This record gives sequence, structure tokens and C-alpha cells, in this order.
Amino acid sequence: MAGADSDRHRVVIVGGGFGGLFAAKFLKRAPVEVTLIDRTNHHTFQPLLYQLATGILSEGSIAPPLREILRRHRNVTVELADVNAFDLKARTVTAARLLGPPLTVPYDSLIVAAGATHSYFGHDDFAPLAPGLKTVDDALELRGRIFGAFEMAELEEDPQARRTWMTFAVIGAGPTGVEMAGQIAELSRRSLKHNFHRIDPADARVLLLDAAATPLATFGEKLSAKAARAIERTGVELRMHSRVIDVTTDAIVVEGPHGEERLGCHTKVWAAGVQASPLGALLARAADVETDRAGRIEVEPDCTLPGHPEVFVVGDLMALNGLPGVAEVAMQSGIYAARTIKRRVAGGRAGTAKPFVYRDLGSMATISRFQAIVSFKGLKVGGFVGWLMWAFVHLTFLTGFKNRWIALFKWLSAFVGSSRDERTITMQQVSARIVAMRAGVRPGEESLSRYVEDRDA
Amino acid sequence: MAGADSDRHRVVIVGGGFGGLFAAKFLKRAPVEVTLIDRTNHHTFQPLLYQLATGILSEGSIAPPLREILRRHRNVTVELADVNAFDLKARTVTAARLLGPPLTVPYDSLIVAAGATHSYFGHDDFAPLAPGLKTVDDALELRGRIFGAFEMAELEEDPQARRTWMTFAVIGAGPTGVEMAGQIAELSRRSLKHNFHRIDPADARVLLLDAAATPLATFGEKLSAKAARAIERTGVELRMHSRVIDVTTDAIVVEGPHGEERLGCHTKVWAAGVQASPLGALLARAADVETDRAGRIEVEPDCTLPGHPEVFVVGDLMALNGLPGVAEVAMQSGIYAARTIKRRVAGGRAGTAKPFVYRDLGSMATISRFQAIVSFKGLKVGGFVGWLMWAFVHLTFLTGFKNRWIALFKWLSAFVGSSRDERTITMQQVSARIVAMRAGVRPGEESLSRYVEDRDA
Repeated sequence: MAGADSDRHRVVIVGGGFGGLFAAKFLKRAPVEVTLIDRTNHHTFQPLLYQLATGILSEGSIAPPLREILRRHRNVTVELADVNAFDLKARTVTAARLLGPPLTVPYDSLIVAAGATHSYFGHDDFAPLAPGLKTVDDALELRGRIFGAFEMAELEEDPQARRTWMTFAVIGAGPTGVEMAGQIAELSRRSLKHNFHRIDPADARVLLLDAAATPLATFGEKLSAKAARAIERTGVELRMHSRVIDVTTDAIVVEGPHGEERLGCHTKVWAAGVQASPLGALLARAADVETDRAGRIEVEPDCTLPGHPEVFVVGDLMALNGLPGVAEVAMQSGIYAARTIKRRVAGGRAGTAKPFVYRDLGSMATISRFQAIVSFKGLKVGGFVGWLMWAFVHLTFLTGFKNRWIALFKWLSAFVGSSRDERTITMQQVSARIVAMRAGVRPGEESLSRYVEDRDA
Repeated sequence: MAGADSDRHRVVIVGGGFGGLFAAKFLKRAPVEVTLIDRTNHHTFQPLLYQLATGILSEGSIAPPLREILRRHRNVTVELADVNAFDLKARTVTAARLLGPPLTVPYDSLIVAAGATHSYFGHDDFAPLAPGLKTVDDALELRGRIFGAFEMAELEEDPQARRTWMTFAVIGAGPTGVEMAGQIAELSRRSLKHNFHRIDPADARVLLLDAAATPLATFGEKLSAKAARAIERTGVELRMHSRVIDVTTDAIVVEGPHGEERLGCHTKVWAAGVQASPLGALLARAADVETDRAGRIEVEPDCTLPGHPEVFVVGDLMALNGLPGVAEVAMQSGIYAARTIKRRVAGGRAGTAKPFVYRDLGSMATISRFQAIVSFKGLKVGGFVGWLMWAFVHLTFLTGFKNRWIALFKWLSAFVGSSRDERTITMQQVSARIVAMRAGVRPGEESLSRYVEDRDA
């Protein structure tokens, strides 16, 4: 309502992740009308999803509502809708809404920041058995499974079956995999102490598997080796040179240096592969351009779609100079696109801008409490100093003043103390499992399958 | 494991609410072996469920894991199981578990603290359309519906239909109903400000209906009248002398002082009736004793089951001297039962104890931020002083040191500020609705029905 002006330049942003949100925020006082379209009501602070999945932070702490973040941005309209068509000729985006006819929004400039999802490398049947960690739903599902596994182990009489409940496999030893494995190890050894009578949670076996030679390989040899030692000190069992070739209800099959092996485990986390949102393929078809193997769109040096200078593709959906799919690239490319649009509107130019240059602010990964590794312009830091840098950066970017203080408080209580405040298993999660067991559905398939089905529909 | 001693007196406690939890805690150093059985992994701090349902607190803040609360109680075993049979002759309790054969636990003393659930007064078909507020699942479901209703209103083009999404009906003007209505009004007027473009959330209509003449009638005429004025100042529309005779997807039918009226509204909260857990009827049949109209068991003056001095019934499941179903009665009767057992074990007596005497510590209800009414031994306090007393008492009883500070911090940010940090609508909630709409199921019926079905199975 406020500030609406139909003659203004119309910007449509698809996706409220780091790319889309930072683009919308950058356009705050620009003389444009922005429509931000997302499928959920919240921004997801993906780098901390592992803390939601392991009981440290609540969903509200890492997933603030988009409407709330953007409430002072009078020129932004937030639409809760699921984009399903681009018309590059008519310059419109179409999206399904919960209610009523589809939404069709015309644009003068379009920023597509639809992000990425998991890749199971052609094994989509693994998905319900080994959820990834890209959304709040994923994290809540994993939280229920992880804490639930200890409950099941407590009930199990057969030692072999109990061991299967007490074994956790994290597939993929990038930052997310390392963080998940480290936190599962910590909660089993510290947070759940004295919680059970028949099992000792500290007996939990946490496997971290990867086909590469070292964990966190992108951090370079020295830091990676340091990380490997730190990971093993937390009690995590590192399995490098190991490819997961099959996933079943209660096991994974691994092809490793010594041949094939079947490892019994109920709880699996998929942190191995990433592929672009299906919107990438949709947009590529509409523009008749190429995508790379991960489904990302090969963009021009100014982040635009080839042949369509008015369409920007940013963040994880963009393939440009081999830039990695991390939050920092998404933010910078989102802001870059917004700045380009602002300049064009101000100057009336529609030509090419200066190419997008990524300012590498380094990368970091936490291993366990007070342990992180940081790589920044040749500077390689590990241990506690690395952890302090990690904490500082994450607090800085955590959206919302209060969330920061709550997060800091919870980190202190989880890391100096040992507690996990968010351990709720809902009856919905429990009864989904009961219903599935009664119906003969393989456990682990029931609760996510509904969601996956609907997502694909 | 630690401290297990098979010769010890065995106490079985059914239910980890205020009654059961406080009984277990009281027995900490007693020479008994305690088994606490609950269907969920958490204690639920029911007096603050309305804050979970309206986005102020997270589930972890009000539902700490039972295992965690009792981790230092070496003589307590927590069992996650659903009690379904009492054998008073063999002195055993049987419960279904998620896994394996049913659990059968023998007891020397039994404390049944299974609590209460909603009563729809014979209209169980209202349940999925107008959920109550007794469990974490209820609160999360209502949270999704309340915040989701504003999203739907934003999408709705038809003014009449939009009004239906923007109307909230709370049925029952006891403490829970007053708190829910007050918080929905506050979040619509303060927290959601500037969040939407097409609707003004402050236009939301919040109805609070009750068949009685005044809200919070149990607080006495003067305080009740004061509360009524305070409620109306928050913008809540009070409808007294009004009975809800039908509930549909998008309306309620009310029989009021001026006849029958149909009021369009999508979001309904049931805070009207309470009935004892079905375990009450089960136990009564086993013992061949009477239940009252609400399904509660008429106990002896020492809270024992008639004819069974070794079986205690406490909390909301107990009918004794007309005591109300509030947390304070549950705590005191739970502790009373535990103390009696401890004395018997120490003294070897199995005789009758001194009757249970409830020490009335008063009652309180919040109306809106900084407004509460308190009734304590003839002292009647309202307004801000009442609110301070409310905050003090609730912080005192909120289990767990950290939860208290987090709660205080969130109250300050929600009441001095205006934010609600916990507004996540999960994709599971959204897609349940989409699936239901596609399948032609009436919205509001899909997500709870699974849970209710399973609960009844």
C-alpha cells in the first residue's frame, strides 16, 4: 500500500535466501517496486541449521519471518508462493499460491535466487532414508530422528539392533557434514549424560564418510589435516576414500579402500551432494541456455542470463568462474544484482555493468565446541581462535538483534554447559512413525515422503 | 543401572505432568525404585502453552525432556510408552512402546497422574476444526493456523472471505481462553504491524465466547468484572451467555442472548471443556469404582483408589472435594502421594495417612501484556502488580535455570518490544494443507486428524 507506484521500475526476486533477501534489502530506498516470492514464510539461516537439528537453537532463532525482516521496506511486497513458470518474452513470473488463482507478476528486472537442494547422484530413493539439511523441515525431521534414535536404543533388547540405533552416519565431509557429525558426537557424550538407564549414550558411534582423501578438502592440505585430527578427538570415526553405494532402512553400504562393507545404522544424514533448484532447469529452458552438471545456469560476467540483460541469476543457482555455493557468494551476488538495477534505473542505461567480482572473505567450519578452522586470504587459523572468529561472524550475520543474544546465550549454555534446550519430539513425528510401522512402511520413509511427494507434485 | 535394587519398594508413576513429575522429584533420596511412564519425551509446562501457540516461546522453553529433568535422580527410570492396562490384582501396569513387546511393570505403589484432555461435550467432530491447547503438538498446530490465517487473508481477494480468515474465535473464557484471545489480539495489533501490504493485521476480529455471564468467573465478581474491562480494552470482543452449538470449516454457530447466529471464522481455539484422560475410565473399571461426569476418579481423602490403598490418583484425574484441575493441585497431590509412600516405606505401615489438604496458593490469569489478575486468600490484585506476581510465579516454576532467563528475555522483547520470535510455519504444515485441499478434505481437518486417529487407535 504505502509507496505503491505503478509507474516505477518493477523488480521481482525469486527466493528469500541470502541472495534474494540481501538484494531486497539493498533496494530499500531505491525508486523501484520489489516483489519477493518465497515458498516459506521465513528466511533460513542455513549455516546454523545443524544447530536446529541437534537441539541447540530453536527454529525461530534461525528462521525469522521474511515479512518481519522486511517490514520497514515499504517498497517490498512479500508473496508466499511457489514459482512454476517464467515467461521471458512477456516478462512475467507465475507462481502457485495456497489459495486462489496463480499469481502472475510482471517485471522490468528479475533476480532469480532460488538456491540449491540435495543431490543424491541419481539415487533419489535415498532421500527419505537419509535426509539432507537445507530447510527448517529437514532440520526438525533430523532432530526427531537423532533424539528418537536414543529412545529406540533404550527400548531395544537385542544388542546388535541396539547398536544399529546407536550408530549415526553422516555422508559427506564438507562443512555441514563435519558440523553435524561433531554435534551428534558432543550431544551423545555430554548432553545426554545420565539421561538413560539401559544405554550409555556415549557409546554412540558417529561415522563421517566421504569419497575424498580428507575432510574439508577445500580448506587446503594443512588445515584439512588439522581438522581431521580435531574431528577424531571428538570421537567421530572418519571414513575417507569411502563412497556410499546403497542406503537402506537400517544400514548403508560403503565402497571403501578395503572393498564393500555394510554398516548397520538407522540414522543417516546426507551432506554429500548439492544440485540447483529445479527452477534452474525451468529458467534455462525458457531462455534456451545451458546448465552445468549440477543444474546451475552459466551466466554472463555480470550475473545475467545470456541474451537477457534484465534477468539476473545469483547465489547457488549461478554458475560463474567456479564460485562455490556458499552464503557469502549468494549475498554478494544478490547485492551486486540489486546495485546494477539501481544504477540502471538511475542512469537510464540498460547496458552491461562491470563484471561481478567476488571478494573472498574466507571460509570457516566448526568442528566441535571451541574448535573451528578458518581460511582467510592465506591466513589459516584453527582451534579456539578459529572458533571465536566463527562465533563473531555468525553472530554478525544472524538476522535480528534479539536472535543474536539468544543465540549467544544458548551457545554458552550448550558449549560451556552441556545442555540442549530444544529436544522436543512431537507426537506428530512419533505417530507418523507408529502409523508407518503398523502399515508396514519402512521406518524413516513415512514422514518425509509426504513432503517430498508434495514438493515434486 | 545405578542404584538399582530389586528388593526395594517399587513405585510406578503414570504421567510426567505436574503431578507425576513432582512425585518423582520428591522421591529423589527415598529408598524406592521409581518408574515414570509418559507418552512423550517431555514434561509440558501447560500454563505457558499459549505462549508457544502465539509465537513468544519455543517448544524447548516450555517442554524440557523428562530424562534431562530427572538425570540426577538415580532411582528413577523414565519409560517412553503409552499405558493401556492396569492389573490391580497382579499389581502391574502395561504400556505399548514404540518398539518391541509391551512393557509390563510391577509395582508396590502406583501413582496415576494421567491428567486431562479436552471435552467437546459429545461433539468430538469439532476437535480437528477447533483444536484445544493441552500438548506441544496442539500449540504448534495452532501456531501454524494463527500465523497462516494472516497469510491466507493477504491472498484472499473477496472481502467477505478475507474477513473470515481475519476472524479468530476462542471458545471458553477461563484462564487459557482469556490468555489466547489476549495474545492473538496483541500480535495482530503490535507484532504484525507493517508485515503485510494488502491487509492491516490490526483489523483482525478476536471473539471470546462463553456460556457464563462473565469471563474468569471463578475469580469472583469484582475481579471478573475488572478482567472483562481489561479484556475489552485489548480489542477482544467478549460474547458472554453464548453457547457454541456448531463448528464448521469456516464458521461457528452461536446460541446467544439474541438467538442463533452464524459467525464466519476459520481459526478456532477450544478452551471450553476438560475431561479426564481415558486412563481414568480404564482404572475405574479395573477397580470397580465410580468416576464423576468429567471422567475423574472419586478418591479417598488420602488420594487413594477406594479399596486400593497402594494406588494413588492425583492431579486432574482425581475428584476430591471439588478441587479444580490446576497445576498447583497436581503438584501438591503428587508430592502428598510421594510423601505418603515414603512414610509407609520408612515406617512399614500400610494404613491410612492424614487426609490430603490443599493449600490454596491462589490463582492467576494474564489478560494482556502487563495485565493480570491474581486472587490469593481474599487478596484480589489486578493490573501491572498482578502481572508482576504472575511473571514471578511462572518464572519460579519454569523448570530449568536457563529456560527461565530465556523466557524472561523473550517476555521483555515481546512485551516491552513487540516481536514474536517463533513464527515458523513448517512446509509439513503447509503441504498437509495443500494435500488436503487437493483431496477435497475440509481444511483444518487434515493435519490433526492423523494425530487424533492415532491417539484413539
